Amino acid sequence: MLPKKAFKTGSTAPDPPAPGVLRLISSRFCPYAHRTRLVLAAKGIDYETVNVCLYKKPEWFFSINPLAKVPTLQHDGKVVYESLVCNEYLDRVFPGRKLLPEEPLEKARIGMLQAVWDAKCQPNLMKVSMSEGEERQKVFDALKEGLSFLEKHLATQSGKSFFGGDQPGILDYSIWPWFELIDLLLTDDDVKLQEVEFPELLAWRAAMFDRPEVQTCAFDMSVFAKYVATMRAGNPDPDIGLEDSN
Amino acid sequence: MLPKKAFKTGSTAPDPPAPGVLRLISSRFCPYAHRTRLVLAAKGIDYETVNVCLYKKPEWFFSINPLAKVPTLQHDGKVVYESLVCNEYLDRVFPGRKLLPEEPLEKARIGMLQAVWDAKCQPNLMKVSMSEGEERQKVFDALKEGLSFLEKHLATQSGKSFFGGDQPGILDYSIWPWFELIDLLLTDDDVKLQEVEFPELLAWRAAMFDRPEVQTCAFDMSVFAKYVATMRAGNPDPDIGLEDSN
Repeated sequence: MLPKKAFKTGSTAPDPPAPGVLRLISSRFCPYAHRTRLVLAAKGIDYETVNVCLYKKPEWFFSINPLAKVPTLQHDGKVVYESLVCNEYLDRVFPGRKLLPEEPLEKARIGMLQAVWDAKCQPNLMKVSMSEGEERQKVFDALKEGLSFLEKHLATQSGKSFFGGDQPGILDYSIWPWFELIDLLLTDDDVKLQEVEFPELLAWRAAMFDRPEVQTCAFDMSVFAKYVATMRAGNPDPDIGLEDSN
Repeated sequence: MLPKKAFKTGSTAPDPPAPGVLRLISSRFCPYAHRTRLVLAAKGIDYETVNVCLYKKPEWFFSINPLAKVPTLQHDGKVVYESLVCNEYLDRVFPGRKLLPEEPLEKARIGMLQAVWDAKCQPNLMKVSMSEGEERQKVFDALKEGLSFLEKHLATQSGKSFFGGDQPGILDYSIWPWFELIDLLLTDDDVKLQEVEFPELLAWRAAMFDRPEVQTCAFDMSVFAKYVATMRAGNPDPDIGLEDSN
């Protein structure tokens, strides 16, 4: 039985996964690892989890992934890392619902939306929670500019709730971890996403919350908030909320 | 005939490309646009070029690409942007030599090498040229750590000169623009890549220089150096080296 607690600097590496077993090297509160957990759940793929501490990385992790970042997959001697690379790999090698379109322009469109998210939305979403006053308002406006692009895209997909169409696809899962955390990131009334400005995006968020794969993987918000408190105190605890026995 | 000079803020948008014509919205000195020029040349795809000024972006560019970044492709009403997205799109929709492997693990491997390049090599390569003394040595060591990973990868491909195998593939083209500029970026003897440390990578660089598609697209180094001088003087001139009549 693998421990839930994070492997840290100085730890002994766990044995490699047994033949045929897919292992996710993860971190409980990492939104990038969350992307891959969502895809694993959406496709109904069995896997085991090894958690690592991202603040005190185990030495052995660097010999598996030179960037020592999560998510990293191990499977029968093969290693795959980088969240979007992992997700495309999983989608292509495992059976089940296809999450990434095959048609080249459709696939390019997902890449372009992802690029807008990466450039305009994600960094500003993080910055809103760390800035104040006028600066915060400026960052929030920049965030909304990026989100408007996603809003417009959803509006062109008449009657389809998700970026993937009738069901979530690879982009829905790749941006979801930050949307799931949005109430932690946008805490005050002056930096809320308003229904009148983002009707499509807020309907998408509600529809995502209803999905079983999203519920299965959901961050426990009360535990997440405690984790953020340890982070802000300069001593992030990746094991917070776990029983001693784990 | 489209002008070679860059469209700037306040310019009138050029007419859209004629039916069937592929247009690259580019910038002469941008390494990201260079990635896509290399793929266009490698696959023998005909296209026309519209240059834009990245320091004084034309307003009309934002209505084509919300990020207003190059490269951007226009083709029969379709728009594709982000260099790696453009390159995969071109590889998939145009005939000719395939640049991206279809096999999922091989494709993932390209994505992982790209991630190491993005995280460890490219930023440090740029930083070396902007830092001094001890700081520069530290950055150079970090750069070499990333490059060692590429070096090792080439060494595992017995007898194959390129990341793409016997011929360059999508990764070769995506990292080449910075390698082409390496003598501008690593100007002093104490920050040179030594043959003894990087035999595979330096052999790869020599083999890349010999490729016709690389020669066709090559930056004119004397002009590029003049461009860098205008940049350093705080007044980047995207049209430097062009005749007045263009």
